[in-house]
Amino acid sequence: MSHEPKSVLTEAVVDRMATGLRFGQWDEKETIALTCEMLAAQGHSETLAGQITVRSEGNTFLTTPMAVGFDEISAADVIRVDEQMNVLDGSGMANPAMRFHMWIYRARPDVNCIVHTHPPFVSALSMTANKLKIAHMDATPFANDCGFLQEWPGLPIADQEGEIISRALGSYRSVLLRNHGFLCATSSIEETAYLSILIERAAKAQLLAEAVGPVEELDLALARESHDFLLLPAVVRSSFAMFARRVIRNRPASSQR
Amino acid sequence: MSHEPKSVLTEAVVDRMATGLRFGQWDEKETIALTCEMLAAQGHSETLAGQITVRSEGNTFLTTPMAVGFDEISAADVIRVDEQMNVLDGSGMANPAMRFHMWIYRARPDVNCIVHTHPPFVSALSMTANKLKIAHMDATPFANDCGFLQEWPGLPIADQEGEIISRALGSYRSVLLRNHGFLCATSSIEETAYLSILIERAAKAQLLAEAVGPVEELDLALARESHDFLLLPAVVRSSFAMFARRVIRNRPASSQR
Amino acid sequence: MSHEPKSVLTEAVVDRMATGLRFGQWDEKETIALTCEMLAAQGHSETLAGQITVRSEGNTFLTTPMAVGFDEISAADVIRVDEQMNVLDGSGMANPAMRFHMWIYRARPDVNCIVHTHPPFVSALSMTANKLKIAHMDATPFANDCGFLQEWPGLPIADQEGEIISRALGSYRSVLLRNHGFLCATSSIEETAYLSILIERAAKAQLLAEAVGPVEELDLALARESHDFLLLPAVVRSSFAMFARRVIRNRPASSQR
Amino acid sequence: MSHEPKSVLTEAVVDRMATGLRFGQWDEKETIALTCEMLAAQGHSETLAGQITVRSEGNTFLTTPMAVGFDEISAADVIRVDEQMNVLDGSGMANPAMRFHMWIYRARPDVNCIVHTHPPFVSALSMTANKLKIAHMDATPFANDCGFLQEWPGLPIADQEGEIISRALGSYRSVLLRNHGFLCATSSIEETAYLSILIERAAKAQLLAEAVGPVEELDLALARESHDFLLLPAVVRSSFAMFARRVIRNRPASSQR
Repeated sequence: MSHEPKSVLTEAVVDRMATGLRFGQWDEKETIALTCEMLAAQGHSETLAGQITVRSEGNTFLTTPMAVGFDEISAADVIRVDEQMNVLDGSGMANPAMRFHMWIYRARPDVNCIVHTHPPFVSALSMTANKLKIAHMDATPFANDCGFLQEWPGLPIADQEGEIISRALGSYRSVLLRNHGFLCATSSIEETAYLSILIERAAKAQLLAEAVGPVEELDLALARESHDFLLLPAVVRSSFAMFARRVIRNRPASSQR
Repeated sequence: MSHEPKSVLTEAVVDRMATGLRFGQWDEKETIALTCEMLAAQGHSETLAGQITVRSEGNTFLTTPMAVGFDEISAADVIRVDEQMNVLDGSGMANPAMRFHMWIYRARPDVNCIVHTHPPFVSALSMTANKLKIAHMDATPFANDCGFLQEWPGLPIADQEGEIISRALGSYRSVLLRNHGFLCATSSIEETAYLSILIERAAKAQLLAEAVGPVEELDLALARESHDFLLLPAVVRSSFAMFARRVIRNRPASSQR
Repeated sequence: MSHEPKSVLTEAVVDRMATGLRFGQWDEKETIALTCEMLAAQGHSETLAGQITVRSEGNTFLTTPMAVGFDEISAADVIRVDEQMNVLDGSGMANPAMRFHMWIYRARPDVNCIVHTHPPFVSALSMTANKLKIAHMDATPFANDCGFLQEWPGLPIADQEGEIISRALGSYRSVLLRNHGFLCATSSIEETAYLSILIERAAKAQLLAEAVGPVEELDLALARESHDFLLLPAVVRSSFAMFARRVIRNRPASSQR
Repeated sequence: MSHEPKSVLTEAVVDRMATGLRFGQWDEKETIALTCEMLAAQGHSETLAGQITVRSEGNTFLTTPMAVGFDEISAADVIRVDEQMNVLDGSGMANPAMRFHMWIYRARPDVNCIVHTHPPFVSALSMTANKLKIAHMDATPFANDCGFLQEWPGLPIADQEGEIISRALGSYRSVLLRNHGFLCATSSIEETAYLSILIERAAKAQLLAEAVGPVEELDLALARESHDFLLLPAVVRSSFAMFARRVIRNRPASSQR
């Protein structure tokens, strides 16, 4: 059988995806709450560590209150804070670690949403000397797109840590933080949520694999091709919508959300 | 005590199984939806990667829409597509990776159902250099019946990948895809579903075992005897029915299915 | 502070346990069904492999039908079979692997209940060259009380396998079966259930520990003292009752049991 | 951008936390029951091993009855015992291992609540030769604050074991018990509960990481700074409240609690 060129096929797929996929309709606060809920379902909110922030108008930011679990956030819980983390709207306080998010928003005008958490597998991977390895198709969204902070700067509530983490992120979408966790920073809540879920899954696979033997990385050109496809807006948005429907469907019968 | 020959005992068992087991009664679309549901329950549908296809009349194929999770599929969601993946019936679009299924259907007239997914343990195993090892009775359905694709050909949405994967599958029922996942292709939905569940379980056991020490494979003749028994239609069909009842029983109270 | 002798303290504990613990009140078939349900909750019934049998009057045996999951068994599903596995009471057929149970009942008049399954962690451990190691207090019920069958004899549905497994069990309560699973055989359903749950837990701990480094076993005298305490009838029966209440409490709202 | 000194920022955070966090309102028995429930949800109550005790007036102690699972405890089940473990209030008997708690209460007047359990990851870690390593921010509450008992003294129901465990704990909040489990002992139920959850999580991360490669510990000064922050009463109490709301929210619909 004759082969059609991959570029032609890819274009046809992109065309189809424009109308063939479901994207969901949630406002900004609902999107934040759904992100919290899906991250919680994947272990990103076991302790009070972890924050989500979203850049908003007038140099304000949306976030969720400290010590309210991602699993219990609803849209009404989302608070608005200023750059000094004073609460402008809503009740509770911002997580003080949000301070290092500010360093990133200043350095990266393209970034509109940051997630930082300590989920179990990224946390364990961060305790080894390993970077995230691109050795599976599902990890390609991090191919040449994930920084590595080699040393834990200490409790990240001051400015020095913000500077260090922001530098380690550089122009990437994600960064693995040694002895600590990860951070994703992209232009949309959906994309940041999507990558946050994928990085924990990638860390789990890497840990399982490396416990058995050495892991070789993929050819970078192929990995980047896959990276670009898996980060197409239609793929990101339809994945987010699928994750959102999943958490909605799995809410306990008693849920008030 | 005197021994009865194993062959006599096996025959008696086969006779008993013809009438002694429960097989369930589901039509084709229900069987597809139940397969999706049981695969989702085992981690086969964490992201939008993964497809199930079934060969149907007139060179058409049944499949499920891209970016609809296996955990949310019901019989009504199943779509019918042609060989070019144009949707003939139902809404949504086919997953573009379904293209490589077509290569297999052309090469293997005996194949009527293909499942390809990236579940967590097969994915992790695929990141090591290891083939699937037949070192447990429950892995014997893959004894001399599982190919190995040594290199990831890149995002599998074009024809080249179809050719490569089809060649790696050869005449086997299953194939492990390096840095990627697995694929099962058999004559029935039930058998493909059954093997898809067993391969993820086998990968988990192998990863756990190899993290501890070297794993020796079983004697091939004994493994093949077990292979043949565990792939008897009565065993496959009663196992599928048991898996199906399990997911039905575990549906949340709010489920509309 | 002065010390009281351990023997005095142990006796006092035994006295207290006679009246201070809750044991539950279930008839034989209910006890079998609860055992199935608690084993299923621990992963002992993922496939159709696995059987529970109970010695009954007139050389008959109670068991559960093949390819009915332990998670779906209720007391009414329990069947009665003769030594040739002909069904005397109830519907369905016995699992043909039950044949090797018969070898054990003949060799061990003290045994009244046998469980054999392939749960994930025992299965993985059985793929390594390791015996079960007594390196944790919770594993002491297997101290000098767990055999090891070094080689998989093949699909265990004939007499030869019965002979081999029965010999490997010897006079122990439990046996680890290489490349296969485990078997527990004791004088009561409760004790067999209890050990079946503990052995899977012990295998999980051992796998996790051995992936990190060498595991040293406990001093045998201390381990045996703990073995004897943890197998006191009051400890076994109150543990079984706790496990039973747990599965009852966790039944889905829709459960008919 | 100019940096504000970390000490100033930390003080500001402490001020904010005084009013910005939710702490919950539960009486002592409710707090014990919630602790049991959250520990059970993390695997601390798989068998009948494990106890929680709370120092109360008149040299009496609150605890939960032996062989009643932490997952089934409600406030009404909490019993009051004297130093000899005679039940003064409520039904059932104390777990005989509670005897070694008494040694700790005598040696440590600052301690008001002790939890000792055998959860799966601490148990597995305790089977290796490793101490708990402080190699992740979330493990810093144990930095220079976790003892290590190198040898299992045998079934801990007598006085000798109490003396040995009490000595290994020394003036720390926690102790890892070789081949056995862990123990936390602090001035409040909330803090003991919080550390008990964190130590199991830390053990899991350490096991996953050490299976891959050597784990280096954090700089002690940075770790201790984080230790002090994560043990601030506001952090401990708001974390406890978050854990408590989580288990309350996840109760099955049928729960009577």
